[in-house]
Amino acid sequence: MNAEIISVGTELLLGQVVNTDTAIVARALSALGINLLYSAVVGDNAERLKTAVETAITRSDLLIMTGGLGPTADDLTKETTAAAAGRKLKLHEDSLRRIQTYFNEKHVSENQEKQAWLPEGCTVLQNDNGTAPGCAFQAENGCTVIMLPGPPSELAPMLENYAVPYLKKSVNSVIVSHNVHIYGRGEAPVAQMMDDLMDGENPTLAPYAKEGECYLRVTAKAADEQQADEMCAPVIEEIRNRLGEFVYGIDVESLEALVVKELLQQGKKLATAESCTGGLLAKRITDISGSSAVFDMGCVTYANEAKEALLYVPHEILEAHGAVSEETARAMAEGIVRRSGSDLGIGITGIAGPDGGTEQKPVGLIYIALSDGSQTWVVKRSPIGRTKNREWHRHCAASQALDMVRRYLEGLPVTVE
Amino acid sequence: MNAEIISVGTELLLGQVVNTDTAIVARALSALGINLLYSAVVGDNAERLKTAVETAITRSDLLIMTGGLGPTADDLTKETTAAAAGRKLKLHEDSLRRIQTYFNEKHVSENQEKQAWLPEGCTVLQNDNGTAPGCAFQAENGCTVIMLPGPPSELAPMLENYAVPYLKKSVNSVIVSHNVHIYGRGEAPVAQMMDDLMDGENPTLAPYAKEGECYLRVTAKAADEQQADEMCAPVIEEIRNRLGEFVYGIDVESLEALVVKELLQQGKKLATAESCTGGLLAKRITDISGSSAVFDMGCVTYANEAKEALLYVPHEILEAHGAVSEETARAMAEGIVRRSGSDLGIGITGIAGPDGGTEQKPVGLIYIALSDGSQTWVVKRSPIGRTKNREWHRHCAASQALDMVRRYLEGLPVTVE
Repeated sequence: MNAEIISVGTELLLGQVVNTDTAIVARALSALGINLLYSAVVGDNAERLKTAVETAITRSDLLIMTGGLGPTADDLTKETTAAAAGRKLKLHEDSLRRIQTYFNEKHVSENQEKQAWLPEGCTVLQNDNGTAPGCAFQAENGCTVIMLPGPPSELAPMLENYAVPYLKKSVNSVIVSHNVHIYGRGEAPVAQMMDDLMDGENPTLAPYAKEGECYLRVTAKAADEQQADEMCAPVIEEIRNRLGEFVYGIDVESLEALVVKELLQQGKKLATAESCTGGLLAKRITDISGSSAVFDMGCVTYANEAKEALLYVPHEILEAHGAVSEETARAMAEGIVRRSGSDLGIGITGIAGPDGGTEQKPVGLIYIALSDGSQTWVVKRSPIGRTKNREWHRHCAASQALDMVRRYLEGLPVTVE
Repeated sequence: MNAEIISVGTELLLGQVVNTDTAIVARALSALGINLLYSAVVGDNAERLKTAVETAITRSDLLIMTGGLGPTADDLTKETTAAAAGRKLKLHEDSLRRIQTYFNEKHVSENQEKQAWLPEGCTVLQNDNGTAPGCAFQAENGCTVIMLPGPPSELAPMLENYAVPYLKKSVNSVIVSHNVHIYGRGEAPVAQMMDDLMDGENPTLAPYAKEGECYLRVTAKAADEQQADEMCAPVIEEIRNRLGEFVYGIDVESLEALVVKELLQQGKKLATAESCTGGLLAKRITDISGSSAVFDMGCVTYANEAKEALLYVPHEILEAHGAVSEETARAMAEGIVRRSGSDLGIGITGIAGPDGGTEQKPVGLIYIALSDGSQTWVVKRSPIGRTKNREWHRHCAASQALDMVRRYLEGLPVTVE
């Protein structure tokens, strides 16, 4: 089954809005084993839209339209697509009532009512997060046409809850992907280690790099989800065998989500002492709802005086080794454990750039320490390869800290050669 | 001048990557006054790509291709586009030398060398951030064709430094936009206040909402930049007259960048005490390079004990009013000033959700306090309208804190009715 997407909206052609709808729909189609051959963006122009829809209906089995279903005059998708597909619009009473309820009144304006006019005989896709319903129908030549609203907060749930189930009826296979998340080994060496596994056609295996981490995606096509899962399982097992402790999870949301979960399970608390990451690590931990049970306190100590006052870092250490040093990171981690009474403490100090680097201590040099009150481990990150920016250095240092906590909690060596 | 974009890459059709290139190019075209009529994504398939390029060259004056210029076998853009445009590829010696230098060796592999083969007679667009050069040339029918590399970190600077100057020669007008950044007034009331100004055709005025803030974009088309600026100026002036202190800047990068700059100018220091924002405010301040001169210390105090120990919040206040209260926010702000010795201190406490809300203290209730050591101001944020998520509540609370600092530094009333 070959598909294409047409997104409608002049704002997408002015670059004011990034077209995330296409990626959302593309992932869903990929999971259904439907080949997406084209995607296009057309402005709010009836003539150009008509031409694009006609071409798509002629060459593809499935056309997904996003955007242009709203109440205003420049929302042209339904009229234009229905005409190109040889269908008339008809008032859909249920949708009108939903719109009336949404606005909490009996009489809705003509503009708002316009949204309830849908192609005759279509399957209505209910909008649980807005006013414009979507729809699915077959064009005269047999091409399936699906229309979804533009706002991603409306499109994503409608796609998942109504459009995908509709499409599942017409495809007889599913594609299932599982992501094996890896920390501490880069994309290139991981790909090399998995070289022989990457020739497989079903399941397939592909490596991806993402913000200083990498993951392997295992994808299988089968008649149903269970069968696809069973095909993925031995490949995931083999990856685990080869990468061991560097695999931190399968299909996990993030390192911080995993760490918060493991801290909760073990009833342990973590505290943070940050210099160059400036609160980013604490922010990432507290991004996770429920983190208050494992996180009492974090200190952002940019100034040396703050490191001394809040974290008991000895003045002599700062004097002798400087703020960016293994010794300071160690003292920060130990100091925050003492200050907070938490089970574990992280200390991070380094040079995030773009300014402040020297020959001895270049931008990107960051020390990360983990202490449990009786023992302390330090990892030194040095800049290698292409120049990265401030955001990247900060993000990677925070990730490294999270992975050290993960390793500690899982009983693995905290530092890796 | 009518343009279209074709992005090449199967990964874009699998939804693994969001197509940000199109938005970047679209904004640049918009600024040049070039109409973008279509954008499309085609996979790494020579036949479909050829058809798409042929259609584009026939109907548009300008075609911009992104992606598929790299060294691997599925990088087909140059061969396919050159063939469709009636051009041969030729080895470009300078580009080959740049690739050799990049890899720090004399002999580069055949794959890498492939990147230096470019359409005969083209203008080469140098890649300062990678190996694959871009190029610009005219097809046989006169359509201008520009090819840019896919990675946004390579595409964006090449576009700005080489492709835009190339295009400027062929357009005889420029479009200039200025953004008027507003805090404390929403998009809808701002739009209403500017109603009469929004009918203008040149310059135009349009309101945008962005993560709890809003801005007005003033856009003028003229023969050159200076003239366009002069056309925008009176509109910007009028907006300033109407919105006054709610305008925090024209074309500024962010609230945090503005606040760090103003703190630097006034030689003042700021410290932060965060509960529900969990380090996000400190993170946003330290996102700004050079912030170490104005930011010594931040505390993330999730637990009540941490609020008492680090910020001297009296036990009685926590007992009597709870952690989420005006009194606690006030004590946190005053406490961090005392603890840090900074000129200004922020205290934030609230319920970011999704859990932890009650009828008296619902999710979204957040108190933000600013203290200068002698006086303290508190703003209460209450959840209104549609339910927002944890990230939104945290972001908006941090923005509110930054705006309070901005108001203080500019001598405006810190709190607004």
